Amino acid sequence: MKRKKITILGSTGSIGTNTLEVIGRYKERYEVVALAAGSNINLLKQQIKQFRPHIISVRETDHLAALREEVKPFHGEVVTGMEGLLQVARYSEADMVVCAISGSDGLIPTYEAILSGKSIALANKEALVMAGEIIMEKARTTRVSILPVDSEHSAIFQCIKGHNQKEIRRLLLTASGGPFLFTPQEEFSKITYQDALRHPTWCMGEKTSLDSATLMNKALEVIEAHWLFNVPIQYIEVVMHPESIIHSMVEYCDGNVLALLSTPDMRLPILYALSYPERLPLDLPPLDLFRLGKLSFYDPLEIGVQKFPCLRLGYHAARQGATMPAVLNAANEVALEAFKQGRISFCDIPRIIEETLDCHKPVPLREISDALRADLWARQQARDIIGRLSCRP
Amino acid sequence: MKRKKITILGSTGSIGTNTLEVIGRYKERYEVVALAAGSNINLLKQQIKQFRPHIISVRETDHLAALREEVKPFHGEVVTGMEGLLQVARYSEADMVVCAISGSDGLIPTYEAILSGKSIALANKEALVMAGEIIMEKARTTRVSILPVDSEHSAIFQCIKGHNQKEIRRLLLTASGGPFLFTPQEEFSKITYQDALRHPTWCMGEKTSLDSATLMNKALEVIEAHWLFNVPIQYIEVVMHPESIIHSMVEYCDGNVLALLSTPDMRLPILYALSYPERLPLDLPPLDLFRLGKLSFYDPLEIGVQKFPCLRLGYHAARQGATMPAVLNAANEVALEAFKQGRISFCDIPRIIEETLDCHKPVPLREISDALRADLWARQQARDIIGRLSCRP
Repeated sequence: MKRKKITILGSTGSIGTNTLEVIGRYKERYEVVALAAGSNINLLKQQIKQFRPHIISVRETDHLAALREEVKPFHGEVVTGMEGLLQVARYSEADMVVCAISGSDGLIPTYEAILSGKSIALANKEALVMAGEIIMEKARTTRVSILPVDSEHSAIFQCIKGHNQKEIRRLLLTASGGPFLFTPQEEFSKITYQDALRHPTWCMGEKTSLDSATLMNKALEVIEAHWLFNVPIQYIEVVMHPESIIHSMVEYCDGNVLALLSTPDMRLPILYALSYPERLPLDLPPLDLFRLGKLSFYDPLEIGVQKFPCLRLGYHAARQGATMPAVLNAANEVALEAFKQGRISFCDIPRIIEETLDCHKPVPLREISDALRADLWARQQARDIIGRLSCRP
Repeated sequence: MKRKKITILGSTGSIGTNTLEVIGRYKERYEVVALAAGSNINLLKQQIKQFRPHIISVRETDHLAALREEVKPFHGEVVTGMEGLLQVARYSEADMVVCAISGSDGLIPTYEAILSGKSIALANKEALVMAGEIIMEKARTTRVSILPVDSEHSAIFQCIKGHNQKEIRRLLLTASGGPFLFTPQEEFSKITYQDALRHPTWCMGEKTSLDSATLMNKALEVIEAHWLFNVPIQYIEVVMHPESIIHSMVEYCDGNVLALLSTPDMRLPILYALSYPERLPLDLPPLDLFRLGKLSFYDPLEIGVQKFPCLRLGYHAARQGATMPAVLNAANEVALEAFKQGRISFCDIPRIIEETLDCHKPVPLREISDALRADLWARQQARDIIGRLSCRP
């Protein structure tokens, strides 16, 4: 059997390492040909030793020498910076590119991989949030298939397979609610960066964990689902489901609802994206509904809207469309960074995003650069707002 | 658009009336060409007036005159008895036959409809329990598709559509647990016929309601699922789920589980069987997970096996195969009748079935008559056991 050749963008992150674990389990089926990492050089070195890619990229030129010195014998190519990253994204040998760079940094390399005609396993939701229209259109014209890696979107993808997409009435995106679903709103001002990283059901990277704590993650996923499945925003609803067992649902026009359940483990949707349309066994304990006993559901309108304004802001930006979601995303990234640095409180995050959105006049998205310009504008705007916040008495 | 021509066997029962309601909603798509009823002549008369079938059958010749007299002008054919029923089952104009006769009486007419090459919407699970091997083989050779109407099997059918049947690891059949799931076992001896009819979540016919109270319904459904989906009995598990919202689930080899959810209303699976592979909207309120709040699950090994021996007996008969399931079914029908007549207690039902099974030497099923012979033998055997029970001091 010919092995599928895989490139991973973001190999040292949470999705990247899980992807490599899955590939390690199925070496007879998958081969790693290219890796792009940021600055976690130690982990990258181990990955190179184990998977022997043909080409790797790192963020800084400074890392080059150390890498060449320590990983011997490694005869592959080592490249750096944005140009290096794009070289890896379009590396000709690859059949599939796993886009697992976190945040807006993922947009350009994801787009590059699509332009090169590679199948995409998409974990970087921000690419679709920022420029979904352009990315999906380009995927159509280059006949590139985009396979979702996010557990929610993988669930929807599996619940649609074999059924008629025109018969969909609603997408029901489930949300764990993060660590603060049941925290009283009065206590929100005391939430620290460390508190916000502690996700109750999923083990994820920093950015997604923080976004899950504010529910911005779900807002981004609503927009992602809109583009991936071509379903209008008003037919995408969020269901708070703290157990994270039902990963999402699709309601059809006759009232039947298909749902996908599994233990919350990213290796499942990752493997499904790699092996699609086949399924391969994973040595995970089967879903044990008896041990769980129950699955519970809460209406975000009752439990979430007051406490988690990001969900409302996400819908607002999504309905406005054009460059608004890119602005939402950029303001969110800047606010998270300031929260991490202790410059603003947890409750300031949605405030900064809302103020930024309020100042933005959306511009139609004609090309990727329109999204990038909006992103840059929003970052400056959000930084200004944070600056003013810090000056408050 | 050409209307689909429908025959309903068992038109005055629970599934029959629901089917007619669905057809009444979609008169531009479906046309009733033939109806078979038992002895509910008043309801049948209304159905004739509303749907104007070409041919109808009633059980007793006595009913003929009254029917002809009162339903005027009705120019259709009226037939009686088993021969009349079979005439309706094979009525040449029909495209699809809804097999909704309850219990073992459904076997022969269902078989006849398959022999005539009609598509089958199968609500009569007993036909597959008694002679699944023969029926499925005949459906294959006559290229007849059997579409499940039981909510559980419709759920599985929808969870398999578009996915690879070879990748199935387990079928998880959900069971409401009936009215006595949480009743202490000490109180079981006092359960009356009326108590047993009161199903908490589903509105169903008498036979299915009683079978749900003993969990025999689930045992019969396990066997039905085995034949319909060609999954070995050991890979079919039962999950107690009192809310009856998840109608069943399919676990795939990678650990992902697809589930079908809806409000418990038989019109949904009936319409799906009629409209398959399309879906048509029904004016039902959408599934409201927020109002429900939670879905709960119990292990039948912990909650059901002691209290509901029928489940164990069903698995036992299924594993033995051959004529054993037909014997299980016949003994059950005789025991239910005796329970209805007040001749035995609720707890005697599984005892009678178990004793009957214990006396049976299974014979391979070569033709339908083998199942019928086993059925007759088991009825006599069960009656003898009941007779002896009644003589007990």
